[in-house]
Amino acid sequence: MKKKNKKVNAAILIIGNEILSGRTQDKNVSFICNWLNSKCGIVVSEVRIIQDIELIIIKNIISLSKNFDYVFTTGGIGPTHDDITAQSISKAFNAKYEYHKEAFNILEKYYGKSKFNDGRKKMAMMPRGSKLIYNPSSAAPGFMIKNILSLPGVPSILNSMIENCKPYLIRGSKVYSKTINVFTVESNISKELGLIQKKFNKFVDIGSYPFFRLGKIGVSIVSRSTSKLKLTNVNKEIVKLMKIKKVKIINI
Amino acid sequence: MKKKNKKVNAAILIIGNEILSGRTQDKNVSFICNWLNSKCGIVVSEVRIIQDIELIIIKNIISLSKNFDYVFTTGGIGPTHDDITAQSISKAFNAKYEYHKEAFNILEKYYGKSKFNDGRKKMAMMPRGSKLIYNPSSAAPGFMIKNILSLPGVPSILNSMIENCKPYLIRGSKVYSKTINVFTVESNISKELGLIQKKFNKFVDIGSYPFFRLGKIGVSIVSRSTSKLKLTNVNKEIVKLMKIKKVKIINI
Repeated sequence: MKKKNKKVNAAILIIGNEILSGRTQDKNVSFICNWLNSKCGIVVSEVRIIQDIELIIIKNIISLSKNFDYVFTTGGIGPTHDDITAQSISKAFNAKYEYHKEAFNILEKYYGKSKFNDGRKKMAMMPRGSKLIYNPSSAAPGFMIKNILSLPGVPSILNSMIENCKPYLIRGSKVYSKTINVFTVESNISKELGLIQKKFNKFVDIGSYPFFRLGKIGVSIVSRSTSKLKLTNVNKEIVKLMKIKKVKIINI
Repeated sequence: MKKKNKKVNAAILIIGNEILSGRTQDKNVSFICNWLNSKCGIVVSEVRIIQDIELIIIKNIISLSKNFDYVFTTGGIGPTHDDITAQSISKAFNAKYEYHKEAFNILEKYYGKSKFNDGRKKMAMMPRGSKLIYNPSSAAPGFMIKNILSLPGVPSILNSMIENCKPYLIRGSKVYSKTINVFTVESNISKELGLIQKKFNKFVDIGSYPFFRLGKIGVSIVSRSTSKLKLTNVNKEIVKLMKIKKVKIINI
């Protein structure tokens, strides 16, 4: 599906105590954000990381589902007792939690009848009415129900599945971005940068991010817009500002 | 302050378009979670990553402040136009947004009167009644107001400041954790692991996380509890289970 000039947004719901305990460094947020941005023109507007607790999952699914075009969940769709995402989403939508026939068949074929035990069968349990998100690396599919897309938490598996989400998504307008790196401190350019932001407020978002490189302090000025023309105009003004301030531009 | 045998929780609010665009990989969540866990006995129960938009920041500050003992914010306290955390928190609590005298003096001394421009002065603006979180690496302090602790987004600066949050925090019970790594697939042990979890439900949280190592599939079984004794008992049962299942334990 393709719709032009439309803002489409998404939220990500990371379900996993292992991230909140600090044990595991999340890698899925930046991957999904980048993919949605560059491949689908979809902007991620919020991320939540929550515990593996049924009531908390239900509450977040209901609220995020209402407020965003799409909600991507990661984690909690494996075979163990702490994998409760599918049953929690079923409860959130009052949908029956049951075997998805096609998922059951895929998994039975993958493991073979004799090794298709209860834990593995659990991975075919989904909210009634789910559409499958196929898994080319380890068979167990994710699913989509209403505007929720549920993916596993293991980054390599999630990455292999992401392209299979595409047919379910309406495309938004592509967001372009330009970065100008300069050697200066933020406070040297903050006032004038604020004025440029004000001038282009409706069309371009300008962000400013300090960095340290080769023992020097610098700033990345990142502008983002759905209009290439507006982006070029903003960049011209930023370059002009740097010349006035005698600030060295590292690269554009 | 020290209080024993008390569950103390926290939320983290990451304020920053650069994380949501996928441009920057967040590193603050795992750092803060680990520090709170190991140094303060405080459990992080939720993380939110949101856009640099005033109304959204206000809404999240109000709701997280009510639901958690502490809320740590990161990002948006620098000198540029997109740094709106302090003014948003002021509005959330109907507190005046004004110069903090001590912060103003610290920054004036750090930059010198002649170089203390408007952008830099902005970093001394805080909600009235804020207590300072000192910054040993780049001077500009964070602040605490009510149960909110506001820190900068740059990881190296945040890391240097975190110990200065300690005096403001009530300690909770330390959470201990044990990890058993085994070579097997989750679905081979999921049923029995679920039964062990059920038996110790109130005292121990058992999580199960698949991994790939040396071309083999394995599972990390992580148990967490405020009771060392209960943790030892759970681990004994898990080791027994692995023996019954003839699963190779890599390390405990």
